[in-house]
Amino acid sequence: MDVTRDAFLGGRLVLHQPRRGYRAGVDPVLLAAATPARSGHSVLELGCGVGAALFCLAARVPDLDLTGVEFQPDYADLARRNATDNRISARIETADLRALPADLRNRSFDHVIANPPYFDRRLGTSSDTAGREMAFGGDTPLRDWLDVATRRLAPKGYLTLIQKADRLPDLLTAMDDRLGSVVIRPIAGRAGRDADRVLVSARKEGRAPFRLCAPLILHDGPEHGADAEDYTAEIRAVLRDGAALPIIA
Amino acid sequence: MDVTRDAFLGGRLVLHQPRRGYRAGVDPVLLAAATPARSGHSVLELGCGVGAALFCLAARVPDLDLTGVEFQPDYADLARRNATDNRISARIETADLRALPADLRNRSFDHVIANPPYFDRRLGTSSDTAGREMAFGGDTPLRDWLDVATRRLAPKGYLTLIQKADRLPDLLTAMDDRLGSVVIRPIAGRAGRDADRVLVSARKEGRAPFRLCAPLILHDGPEHGADAEDYTAEIRAVLRDGAALPIIA
Repeated sequence: MDVTRDAFLGGRLVLHQPRRGYRAGVDPVLLAAATPARSGHSVLELGCGVGAALFCLAARVPDLDLTGVEFQPDYADLARRNATDNRISARIETADLRALPADLRNRSFDHVIANPPYFDRRLGTSSDTAGREMAFGGDTPLRDWLDVATRRLAPKGYLTLIQKADRLPDLLTAMDDRLGSVVIRPIAGRAGRDADRVLVSARKEGRAPFRLCAPLILHDGPEHGADAEDYTAEIRAVLRDGAALPIIA
Repeated sequence: MDVTRDAFLGGRLVLHQPRRGYRAGVDPVLLAAATPARSGHSVLELGCGVGAALFCLAARVPDLDLTGVEFQPDYADLARRNATDNRISARIETADLRALPADLRNRSFDHVIANPPYFDRRLGTSSDTAGREMAFGGDTPLRDWLDVATRRLAPKGYLTLIQKADRLPDLLTAMDDRLGSVVIRPIAGRAGRDADRVLVSARKEGRAPFRLCAPLILHDGPEHGADAEDYTAEIRAVLRDGAALPIIA
């Protein structure tokens, strides 16, 4: 497989990933920044790919107990290699999230995180490589992602997700009353624009009312000017310095 | 019943409403401003109260065919009186929305609008008068509001709702696939704050993807200063001049 080496968090993390197919961009970095994990916590990522979210989180919060599950063996192998190369301790399992190894099915986690595929492949999506197709448009229903995540959470544990904004109704519909204290942080490219993505936080057995927060804005100014990098200061701090990004504004 | 006369839209509309109990404020005015009705269209409001939304809409758009349904006879009587006093032609039915008169059940509308109660009374809410209790916390499930609204819409007709932001998951879960092209416009008191309300647009047989728009901001500045009125220019235009407020930013 043709692999690239890419720097994340201003070079604090270097990840191998396939040159073609799904490649980690801003979204897993935002997911990690939004996860309210503290040292000593256990974190499970469903669909961890090459480990971008999990390892960005490890770069910010020391002493986490990290587990990643990835269905595609090539990506899981790269995740293991990335953990070793970045001196991060993590268990990476090659598995379908609907058929987790028995010992994982007996564990519960302080945090479950996921960046589920952005399209439902069963509804017909085309894509140029199989890896990309699986990562962008999986055939596991969002309801299964939510159900497995919920089962694996400890009581009062946090679920943190990032997803395309247009799947927000599917996400909310897929949550059942084992989850509560749901908070949505819309992510818009620029002020005044529709949200492109949503960060979602929920707690197992949470009882607080649903909250819809002010949007997180990625770029300054009304449009992209020339080749200038125009991330907002808040986003630059996340992408370059590995800052935390609490979902609750 | 002790009744007040209150000016809306800079005095273009004067409404009688009960001194105590549910009283129309900003929300029905925003609902009317967000309804994309044009002259000649038919509009049904479920739970019209004293008619604030319906008559604000009539003040902006001439030649609408207006129907309001209100369960509480006192409020329905005031709605009829308000229509007459403001020289607006509207049919107001005193009825439970789950048991509409037969001729209404045989009609379809270009628009259905509603500002459903903000609390589910079945979950236990207290309130000082029965009218207030019914308008703020009805005992009709949100799913019934959505079902009746959907049934009464013409194909490609528009549903426009305003609701407390914390009921957004209930609203989205209550919509079924007869509705699509759902658009959410969050409403926040001030920039950077959580949304308090959501404006929701959906179309019967709509097929466009879900959209989460930039928030509508009610007030300028970081906090309420003295007694100064600090509505944003966009909101002042709606409240004082009866301007339209398209949900899609």
